[in-house]
Amino acid sequence: MTSSPATAEIRFVLVTIAHIRDLAQHDRFADASDDVVDAVLEGAGEFASGVWGPINGIGDTVGAQWTDDGVVMPDGYASAYQAYVEGGWGTIGVPVEHGGQGLPFVLQTAVLELLGTANTGFALCPTLTVGAIEALVHHGSADQQALYLPQLATGAWTGTMNLTEPQPGSDVGALRAQAFPRGDGTWSIKGTKIYISFGDHDMAENIVHLVLARTPNAPPGTRGISLFLVPKFRLDAAGKPAEPNDVKVVSIEHKLGLHASPTCVLSFGDHDDCIGELIGPEHGGMRAMFTMMNNARLNVGLQGVQIGEAATRKAVSYALERVQSARAGAADRTPARIADHPDVRRMLMRMSAQTQAARALVYYAAVQVDLAALGDEEAQDRLEILTPLAKAHATDLGNEIASIGVQVHGGMGYVEETGAAQLFRDARITPIYEGTNGIQAADLVGRKLGLSNGKAFEALLTDLRTTAKAAPLTELIYHCEDIGRRLTGANADDRLAASYPFLTMLSVAVCGWLMEQQHSAATDDDFGQVKKATAAFYLDQIVPEAIGLAAAASAPADQLYAIDPALLLA
Amino acid sequence: MTSSPATAEIRFVLVTIAHIRDLAQHDRFADASDDVVDAVLEGAGEFASGVWGPINGIGDTVGAQWTDDGVVMPDGYASAYQAYVEGGWGTIGVPVEHGGQGLPFVLQTAVLELLGTANTGFALCPTLTVGAIEALVHHGSADQQALYLPQLATGAWTGTMNLTEPQPGSDVGALRAQAFPRGDGTWSIKGTKIYISFGDHDMAENIVHLVLARTPNAPPGTRGISLFLVPKFRLDAAGKPAEPNDVKVVSIEHKLGLHASPTCVLSFGDHDDCIGELIGPEHGGMRAMFTMMNNARLNVGLQGVQIGEAATRKAVSYALERVQSARAGAADRTPARIADHPDVRRMLMRMSAQTQAARALVYYAAVQVDLAALGDEEAQDRLEILTPLAKAHATDLGNEIASIGVQVHGGMGYVEETGAAQLFRDARITPIYEGTNGIQAADLVGRKLGLSNGKAFEALLTDLRTTAKAAPLTELIYHCEDIGRRLTGANADDRLAASYPFLTMLSVAVCGWLMEQQHSAATDDDFGQVKKATAAFYLDQIVPEAIGLAAAASAPADQLYAIDPALLLA
Repeated sequence: MTSSPATAEIRFVLVTIAHIRDLAQHDRFADASDDVVDAVLEGAGEFASGVWGPINGIGDTVGAQWTDDGVVMPDGYASAYQAYVEGGWGTIGVPVEHGGQGLPFVLQTAVLELLGTANTGFALCPTLTVGAIEALVHHGSADQQALYLPQLATGAWTGTMNLTEPQPGSDVGALRAQAFPRGDGTWSIKGTKIYISFGDHDMAENIVHLVLARTPNAPPGTRGISLFLVPKFRLDAAGKPAEPNDVKVVSIEHKLGLHASPTCVLSFGDHDDCIGELIGPEHGGMRAMFTMMNNARLNVGLQGVQIGEAATRKAVSYALERVQSARAGAADRTPARIADHPDVRRMLMRMSAQTQAARALVYYAAVQVDLAALGDEEAQDRLEILTPLAKAHATDLGNEIASIGVQVHGGMGYVEETGAAQLFRDARITPIYEGTNGIQAADLVGRKLGLSNGKAFEALLTDLRTTAKAAPLTELIYHCEDIGRRLTGANADDRLAASYPFLTMLSVAVCGWLMEQQHSAATDDDFGQVKKATAAFYLDQIVPEAIGLAAAASAPADQLYAIDPALLLA
Repeated sequence: MTSSPATAEIRFVLVTIAHIRDLAQHDRFADASDDVVDAVLEGAGEFASGVWGPINGIGDTVGAQWTDDGVVMPDGYASAYQAYVEGGWGTIGVPVEHGGQGLPFVLQTAVLELLGTANTGFALCPTLTVGAIEALVHHGSADQQALYLPQLATGAWTGTMNLTEPQPGSDVGALRAQAFPRGDGTWSIKGTKIYISFGDHDMAENIVHLVLARTPNAPPGTRGISLFLVPKFRLDAAGKPAEPNDVKVVSIEHKLGLHASPTCVLSFGDHDDCIGELIGPEHGGMRAMFTMMNNARLNVGLQGVQIGEAATRKAVSYALERVQSARAGAADRTPARIADHPDVRRMLMRMSAQTQAARALVYYAAVQVDLAALGDEEAQDRLEILTPLAKAHATDLGNEIASIGVQVHGGMGYVEETGAAQLFRDARITPIYEGTNGIQAADLVGRKLGLSNGKAFEALLTDLRTTAKAAPLTELIYHCEDIGRRLTGANADDRLAASYPFLTMLSVAVCGWLMEQQHSAATDDDFGQVKKATAAFYLDQIVPEAIGLAAAASAPADQLYAIDPALLLA
């Protein structure tokens, strides 16, 4: 059932959407030549399907296990991880001065996609390490960068993000973990963090926990939060992992899916001996956290692409092999492969089109990271407005596609052995973590619509409006512009009540625009034929669905607050 | 987290949608007085939440287990099932002459809803028994009825449906199980059946398998299929279960959810000693099967309602208790219960509105069974056109609602302990079994649009058109009428390519029409306030989404067949 990864499609998106050849014109990304891009995609694709894919099943059925000595990964994971480190796959996007290859973020995105399509849960581990690297690159001291970045770049050490606590949940400003100065420049950390992905495991020499905590007398809310680096093993004078730090894995969650990824409850400083270092200035934690969180959000959106791709391939393979019933209305009464029955064909086209749309959206956002790094201020605005779309819409699509994938398999889809159900289970966390999709929608209407005095939104809509051609797409863009302007002036309740349907509409508008660009760029070879067909399907059939959301995106909050929600239990 | 069941809502739907008081004017249903209806709802609600609800968790975590001696149910199931038998809950809708109470099918539907909201997997057992009862009531001989119906009515014996075989899958006409005459009027059955829900268990004295098989020299396809009754234990001269029949449980499936329901592979006649009786005439199997299947389809649609109701209650309860973040834009910076955040409120309203819509649709279809039984021919037509909508759309909604339920719980929703994830897993089979939703859509455009020379469809649309008031609803109905007429004249490929979006549009049109009727009937008490709010939400925000499907429901098949689907793997 395993088939070759989507390297041709990824290459096409890198060229036509991310314009990676333009990036390669800049000194900074001069290494990103066609040859290098091809070699990276081919190598990563082979590695992912050859080494990480085969252990995806055991990752689900056995899963990461909690023991008194910490988390133990299933058989084969430690060596597959070591092969990843040795292959240098973690170093793609890390700056050369920190031990990386300095290639574009969008190419690193492509590598992560290939890894995650083979094994989504496992790929979350390097995804988090990328976040830790970003935080240290932008906010770490020279010493911290020298000590930690080369190890994180290769993945010899892995990274974690520690935001959530039991009571405050997503309300980061209410967190309670504490940090006390120890007098020698280091800090003593105390508190409990939950939902820490890869908070512990047995695959790497060290784990670098990035932990949000409050210092004594810090102001309340998010303004009083600082970011700390807390290694699992403290470093000795030579910079090698030595004594264990006072960090305990209390338990791991029994989850719906993503079983290869241990979701840990971590207790810091049970014995008042958890030593951490401040990253960036005291009370500067939120800014540092946003650095890692924003890219992490794109990478969670990318999980939607990973799952969409894996589910589509599995469903197409099954539908080509499974023979059942003659085709309705056909003279030939021989049973046909189910891929030839119209409604199954519709499901396969939808899965492909939605996967391509999600990929285009995420890669379009990802390349803005590279453009912003080159000093393009408009790209920074574009990145910020695209981030909630990429995170929320691509993960929504991952769930939709995985669910259709189960459906294509019929009864076999509900039986765990097929693997379609695993993708359906794995996908369901992605709209929740890294800021729920509701929080993404709130970010879109609360911060991003008004970003740069509304110019970020206007610039995006101008690009869409002036180049989109298909009639439904033009109509959708009109609605997005109209509703977006109204929401900008609306009160908080009305804005938030409309936020989710508006986010979906705007996401589909951007996806439609990107699919149309790909349609124009497609040639007449097999790949181009597929691209034209899926893009046409998207523009003709999926874009109009989003227009149907205009009523919900225009409805005032009154309708939601007409009744006491407790009455819904009556 | 358990709260009282939705008896007030069910009573309202029975009165305003099913018009149960009109039914009670007929001699046949004279017992269905308000008092009896109230007593049944209250009693079933208490029984379901008091006895079946508490063992839902163990049903999921331990599940039904296969052993050499057959399937063993989790602790507590046998006694809870016995309490169901003794309470007489199985007898509600069975005709008095066969040992039942002769109450309306739609009231039996209400009882099954309450049982399934407490424990969906468990309630599948009586659901299947209802199907076996229907087949015997309509097609069994007097002897068969006398021997089997009283036991099936109480549930002392349970029933199964055996259609699917490993190779043909949903293509019933291609099944291979065989039946050979034994010369004494009985038949020797041989073959393997898969996906047999409650194909074995240890809760009842006997299991009555209804099995489709071919007799020697039967014509090919569905015209050559006969239905057989195959008891797990043969009856002795006194009609008591005695010797075991030659039926073996080969295995049970390891499924995504519905773990309390054993999904069996059954082997009939391994030792050429499986004795069965013909039900109805030889080669009359499909007709008998459709009798049980049609009502089973309504009851699977009802599972969408069950899961929707359970998920909504769980999410509302959680959102009322969970306090997190101050409300955006509010002067008061105290953290609020999440139910008061606009996007969470939107999710809760959507869950409630969709659950109510699914319930109205299924009950509206269910009461047509009663009206048809009273001789109303238009009701028979209405039932046939509503059946694919009730099965497919209500199960789609059950999945949507369960998924939103996970989302409302945030990270906790992904942790299995909460129970939200179980509902999400349990729901996923419902669009697949009892005819996939794609098969329902094919049934709608292939058979039902043309039923009674198209009069069944025209009559439904006339009812909708002449009484609907809300503007979006009127527009949606217009599209349904227009597209439905075009599809009636279209070729098979175009009809099927459009079938699924068209089914959704027509379902939402019927649901909107039923929600509008409820809005009109609602008074100003608390219940009426909720009903008006959810109905308004449905009409204003959900109905327009379905209009967005018009493009897909109007698209020709060409777009799907533009490429070889094998190229989607390139």
